[in-house]
Amino acid sequence: METEELVIETRSKELTDLTKDVREFCHHVGGSGLVNVFVPHATAGLAIIELGDGSEPDLAHLLEALFPKDIEYNHQHGAPGHGADHLIPSVFSPSIVVPVIDGEPQFGRWQYLVLVDRNPDNPVRHVRLSFVPA
Amino acid sequence: METEELVIETRSKELTDLTKDVREFCHHVGGSGLVNVFVPHATAGLAIIELGDGSEPDLAHLLEALFPKDIEYNHQHGAPGHGADHLIPSVFSPSIVVPVIDGEPQFGRWQYLVLVDRNPDNPVRHVRLSFVPA
Amino acid sequence: METEELVIETRSKELTDLTKDVREFCHHVGGSGLVNVFVPHATAGLAIIELGDGSEPDLAHLLEALFPKDIEYNHQHGAPGHGADHLIPSVFSPSIVVPVIDGEPQFGRWQYLVLVDRNPDNPVRHVRLSFVPA
Repeated sequence: METEELVIETRSKELTDLTKDVREFCHHVGGSGLVNVFVPHATAGLAIIELGDGSEPDLAHLLEALFPKDIEYNHQHGAPGHGADHLIPSVFSPSIVVPVIDGEPQFGRWQYLVLVDRNPDNPVRHVRLSFVPA
Repeated sequence: METEELVIETRSKELTDLTKDVREFCHHVGGSGLVNVFVPHATAGLAIIELGDGSEPDLAHLLEALFPKDIEYNHQHGAPGHGADHLIPSVFSPSIVVPVIDGEPQFGRWQYLVLVDRNPDNPVRHVRLSFVPA
Repeated sequence: METEELVIETRSKELTDLTKDVREFCHHVGGSGLVNVFVPHATAGLAIIELGDGSEPDLAHLLEALFPKDIEYNHQHGAPGHGADHLIPSVFSPSIVVPVIDGEPQFGRWQYLVLVDRNPDNPVRHVRLSFVPA
């Protein structure tokens, strides 16, 4: 299988754009099929959203509304509120599939695929890209 | 790859049932594998739920609870509350995969695959169906 | 297609670990590609999270925050609050894809794939595993 584990420098940002990485992987592999993006971490997930025009801070507010850092969690490891980070992949799935035609992932004009990671202790993350041809 | 971009008339409804479209595509293609349903828009997503018996208005309430229209968003384009629409695909992923056996998608008896789109300004949407054989 | 419908005894627990089942299926099938996990029910979903260290009760609290049992639902079948169960698969998608290399699903060290089902009336559930080779 054409598969590759990317090393992503999040620089501790909540959102990291992976769209270009997915495009380059698909261009390199070529052909038509499905590309799977998979994050092998327990405190990060994926989302397909528009970037720019204020969508990043709006998503940051949604993350805080869904997974507030200041309530008590049973999970006690890490920095205060780290229990919230462990809930992220349950809603923001770490696995997404995108159709590919002739080496081009079929993102819409305003779609970006982003890594969602609220843990500032993770400046580097891994993301696996895998291609299955039709 | 067997792939097709459907043009879906949502008639500005929040939920549009795509189950029959997916079934027909799989019947036409035949064989066993995975069918991917992908929405190339930045303000719409997908969900697999039961339809009927009150599930539609219950999902409408959930959408308003998760993405309230009447709070302030950084995203300022479109009608008031349009920032909320931009958050939908982050939780209701625009990509779903369904297993197919002998041309039949393996939905359970009470499962329907629906397009989720709260923006009344979008009476027509596109949905891509793609099949990868095993 | 290599595909199998598992019969899972949830014993009415909210979370049931499927990781070992997915691993065994992939070991048996062998090869590299994508494995799809699909739940053909309308009141259950899937999540990839860490287990242990308090993550289970934290996810239980998130489920109650997202889908409270004590509010009124339009859906009136089943036990009180059963309308909440019908919303679970809209957020916790019943379909997840995991990359497989040489018969090994590429879960991270802390990742577990779990069935999410809050309905105590379902002690037995079905889960379909399907493999598409690259």
